[in-house]
Amino acid sequence: MLHMLVRDLGEFGLIEKLARAVADENDALMAGLGRRGFRVRLSIGDDAAAISAPAGLLTLTTDTMVEGVHFDLAHIPWHDLGWKALAVNLSDAAAMGAEPVCSLVTLGLRPDLPVSGLLEMYAGMMEAHGRYGGSLVGGDVVKSPAFFVTVALEGAVQILDWRERLLTRDSARPGDLVVVTGHLGCSAAGLQMMTDGLASTMDAGTACHLREAHNRPAPRVAEGLALASAGVRAAMDVSDGLVADLGKMCQASGVGAVLDAAHLAADDCLRRAFPGEWLELALSGGEDYELLFTAPPDVLESVVQALDVPVHVIGKVVEGPPSVRVLDAAGRELNLAAGGWDHFTQPE
Amino acid sequence: MLHMLVRDLGEFGLIEKLARAVADENDALMAGLGRRGFRVRLSIGDDAAAISAPAGLLTLTTDTMVEGVHFDLAHIPWHDLGWKALAVNLSDAAAMGAEPVCSLVTLGLRPDLPVSGLLEMYAGMMEAHGRYGGSLVGGDVVKSPAFFVTVALEGAVQILDWRERLLTRDSARPGDLVVVTGHLGCSAAGLQMMTDGLASTMDAGTACHLREAHNRPAPRVAEGLALASAGVRAAMDVSDGLVADLGKMCQASGVGAVLDAAHLAADDCLRRAFPGEWLELALSGGEDYELLFTAPPDVLESVVQALDVPVHVIGKVVEGPPSVRVLDAAGRELNLAAGGWDHFTQPE
Repeated sequence: MLHMLVRDLGEFGLIEKLARAVADENDALMAGLGRRGFRVRLSIGDDAAAISAPAGLLTLTTDTMVEGVHFDLAHIPWHDLGWKALAVNLSDAAAMGAEPVCSLVTLGLRPDLPVSGLLEMYAGMMEAHGRYGGSLVGGDVVKSPAFFVTVALEGAVQILDWRERLLTRDSARPGDLVVVTGHLGCSAAGLQMMTDGLASTMDAGTACHLREAHNRPAPRVAEGLALASAGVRAAMDVSDGLVADLGKMCQASGVGAVLDAAHLAADDCLRRAFPGEWLELALSGGEDYELLFTAPPDVLESVVQALDVPVHVIGKVVEGPPSVRVLDAAGRELNLAAGGWDHFTQPE
Repeated sequence: MLHMLVRDLGEFGLIEKLARAVADENDALMAGLGRRGFRVRLSIGDDAAAISAPAGLLTLTTDTMVEGVHFDLAHIPWHDLGWKALAVNLSDAAAMGAEPVCSLVTLGLRPDLPVSGLLEMYAGMMEAHGRYGGSLVGGDVVKSPAFFVTVALEGAVQILDWRERLLTRDSARPGDLVVVTGHLGCSAAGLQMMTDGLASTMDAGTACHLREAHNRPAPRVAEGLALASAGVRAAMDVSDGLVADLGKMCQASGVGAVLDAAHLAADDCLRRAFPGEWLELALSGGEDYELLFTAPPDVLESVVQALDVPVHVIGKVVEGPPSVRVLDAAGRELNLAAGGWDHFTQPE
């Protein structure tokens, strides 16, 4: 077992081992779904999973992490890899104002990967489901020259008039404030720290905080529900970087946005560890998995009361063609590089 | 455009182009879902797709195809690749007795892939949705050193007592007959023909038939619904090979099975083209995407009347430990190799 590889166990042996490892915890999670009217009728083991669902609004999202592109096993422990693969999908559900219901996990595996690592990865996924709800109901395991993990997640918004509760990208309106939960930039800073081997130059607490921001992002599931309840309409999660993602919201809503760099939500750890780069990391680092939303000032007041996490007002929505401008403390416009993250057009 | 590559267009440009290419056809497909009580509220473009659904039973399945493992662009045209990526998932829904609702498509792309090929691939996916129902509501596009396509498919069984209609693997009972729709072995024969360059040794019709069996499998969606209506309880699709898949059904149901090689459903094309190998191809070739089911003789009578495709009774379910035995015309047991398809344990 200690050194067993995927190729020693084979596809069906591996599926059985993974299924057995999560079975008890998964049963408890499925029972939890019953309180919301969902019942898992079949999970891992048949041609498809089957779930009885009440009438309502379902959300469906999928996100993939590829070794060498989205993660490096030298920098992320297996357990955290499982957590993150699920968390980035939970974050998408959160950004719609939906509660997690169930996930399908697809593994593309090199035959020389260790089975023990995959078991730890599944434990990380179950930890995320345990924390945020939902259960793991199925998936697929295939051989692949590149190791990848794809998660598809179904969420639910259990209301009848969907327009009243769904958080969409096309609902930002001039006069809205631009707001984010938590802090930005720490995830990208954590990646840079690990890639450049900078952890030893920082105090242990800072290094730990930045590493955790990258490897164990906290999807804002409860916050998404609270935003929807409080009357927020426009939200998305910050995965490709603040400016790039806000740009997508502006495009979908047909509005412009102006950000105030002086009020940007970057925490002290980040500013201390990257005094020269913190602003760029916060503006376009990405993988923050915080919620970016817009709301009229009166709605924002009730939002602040409903949330346990800090929120930062970082700008406002304006009339005009879709664009994002960033102003410094003196009101001068900052020049941004293309911003955001597009893997295909990065240098190889 | 003619020679545009993924790296020239970038992630967001590519997503926009793909979304635009399928938009009109997808709108029509989504309208079709309305007749079954589903409404697509948001598709490609937000953090998640959102669908209003009536109360009922949902099925969720996912299947992945990896270049060099599951397909070779030298042997499958782009359009067929799209068809097949969706068809293998539609086949899983069919094997549950479910109707397709919507799909999420994840592309792991080498930056040097041609955009025109991906557009053809999407046209192939839309053709399959058009034929069998459902619509494409979202997905993810990532960079990957290995090209892969993952589809997640949601299906629906719109009845209240799910036990009455779902087709599961654990419902085979001693005394049931073992039955398959259509014919087996042609898909694996088509792969062997293309890999070994044998097409020129066959007549054009045979070569075309075998190639199509591999590249454009026909998921048995209507047949799955008809089986469920006729009272069949135990079914799965044949993807890893008849003996291997029947073995899984026996395991799940706690029964044995005996197959009659003389009655195996191999068509004349296959027997002529592979006179020495047809039986092995039919027993363990895989990727047939026919439905394998078991039913008592009286249920089978009404099944035969309800189906437009031929069905073949190929054996029976017996008491005893989970195992599959294959008997020849004289009643002698055939010795099978391990059988079925496990990519990880194949020689590299």
